[in-house]
Amino acid sequence: MSHPDSARGTPGFPRPLVPVLAVVGVGLIGGSFAAALRRAGQVGEVWGVGRQAATLEQALELGLIDRAVSLEDAARADLVLMAVPVGATRATLDGLAPHLGPDTIVTDAGSTKMDVVRAAREALGARIGQFVPGHPIAGSERSGPAAAFPDLYRGRTVILTPLDENPPAAVDLVERAWATCGAEIRTMRPGEHDTVLASVSHVPHLLAFAYMAQVLEAADAGLRLDLAGSGFRDFTRIAGGSPDMWRDIFLANRDAMMQETAAVRRALDAFEQAMSEGDEARLRAMLEAVSASRRAWRAGQPSPDTNE
Amino acid sequence: MSHPDSARGTPGFPRPLVPVLAVVGVGLIGGSFAAALRRAGQVGEVWGVGRQAATLEQALELGLIDRAVSLEDAARADLVLMAVPVGATRATLDGLAPHLGPDTIVTDAGSTKMDVVRAAREALGARIGQFVPGHPIAGSERSGPAAAFPDLYRGRTVILTPLDENPPAAVDLVERAWATCGAEIRTMRPGEHDTVLASVSHVPHLLAFAYMAQVLEAADAGLRLDLAGSGFRDFTRIAGGSPDMWRDIFLANRDAMMQETAAVRRALDAFEQAMSEGDEARLRAMLEAVSASRRAWRAGQPSPDTNE
Repeated sequence: MSHPDSARGTPGFPRPLVPVLAVVGVGLIGGSFAAALRRAGQVGEVWGVGRQAATLEQALELGLIDRAVSLEDAARADLVLMAVPVGATRATLDGLAPHLGPDTIVTDAGSTKMDVVRAAREALGARIGQFVPGHPIAGSERSGPAAAFPDLYRGRTVILTPLDENPPAAVDLVERAWATCGAEIRTMRPGEHDTVLASVSHVPHLLAFAYMAQVLEAADAGLRLDLAGSGFRDFTRIAGGSPDMWRDIFLANRDAMMQETAAVRRALDAFEQAMSEGDEARLRAMLEAVSASRRAWRAGQPSPDTNE
Repeated sequence: MSHPDSARGTPGFPRPLVPVLAVVGVGLIGGSFAAALRRAGQVGEVWGVGRQAATLEQALELGLIDRAVSLEDAARADLVLMAVPVGATRATLDGLAPHLGPDTIVTDAGSTKMDVVRAAREALGARIGQFVPGHPIAGSERSGPAAAFPDLYRGRTVILTPLDENPPAAVDLVERAWATCGAEIRTMRPGEHDTVLASVSHVPHLLAFAYMAQVLEAADAGLRLDLAGSGFRDFTRIAGGSPDMWRDIFLANRDAMMQETAAVRRALDAFEQAMSEGDEARLRAMLEAVSASRRAWRAGQPSPDTNE
């Protein structure tokens, strides 16, 4: 499919960064990406792909997309953003692969990268260089096209994990697109991404879920929940998250996560050993080191918490 | 020491609940208790005991106490509130014991109860009935006499763990004093208190400290802290707490805490088993049960969090 004239831009005006953008999954993530690029005048046409006609209709009405197209057609866009649930990544890649335009760049927004890269290699084969893995660290409780807004990524971090096979121009396009959204780009290897995200995001969620689960299993669970205060509240807030999303992440990133939980168990052992031995000085030193670092981290954060 | 006329009240007016109150440790906890009773007109005279003359001077200037007295003299008050650091409880009880008035009631504010009860039995011997163990669940970042205010306990929970040896009138006095402060009284056995508090307060703090400790030990700790977002922030907020206070609590309540952490480890095992086996359905069911309960708990809380 050739690009309509409008997508090539107007004579005398610079060609937009992304003449034709295809977004697979026009929800909060995909819709906001399109909205940001459109507001910056850096996209010519936006195509939307999805399984639910009602969602695409809503995205059209909201002006997030110009056309609803099939996955096959989307594969000829200049840039394809896969913003689908983690579980749908492989099927999306399989759908794109046979029709992939020679210069089309595909990127994603998944919370894990090693499994996505593995799936992309299987689906795209020798054309793997056309896939630039990415992960925008942003989100909110809301979902769907109505939740999308152009400022979602402003000031947020996007992690790219380019592959050795990616031509520099491919990585550059994806970087510039996210930079246009106002995001800060960090680059690392897929395995490093998964370890770091396991450490600072996935494992805290797992620990909060596991901790809460055993409180609920206690015979006096009602009494415990009655007496639970602000410490419990803050510690378990993230245990109220989406079961579907976290199931997908826990399964996708289990290897990295279990490395990290092993380290947590060892740290817990160390504290408990000091407690068992009644070693006041060591216990205090351990607590002081952590507390000081946590307060320093908080002081370095851009927006102070109202609750701290 | 007999009570001054003022403490007995004015003829024609009802006798205050506590003609003479002694507060050992006139900081946030002790000072607020005295201030609340005074505002309610339920205390005649307030005596303050402490090791630092400057603190007592400040408490006098702020009107929290009427007189600074020795521990020996305080033992003759109608009610003695021990609001000292956990580590000073035994010494305080030992100081009170030889001089304890025949009708004097002693209570405390410690975060743990089994160890306090043990210390009280050793210090007071046959007069153990004059000690009513208590734990006001309240606090703030601030400390010292200047932080004290009469509304600290309004709407808060105070747990009393009366002993079999306590005469009903002794328990009644302590209950009514805390009720005058606006607190809600819950009663349970000391061991039950320690288990419940281990579960919903002490262990979350230990887990947050241990989790944060191992993040800091990672070779790429800087990168991890850089990418840590709101989930990390909420989960680790309580790892910024006082090293002294938490050292004392972790040592005092280690038995109950280690029972609870064993349960946490087992729950973590169960989640990891579902992850290892790729059991999507079971994992989702486990996450859904926890998430639904956490959201229900939050909905039942009196003051919604601005961050949720």
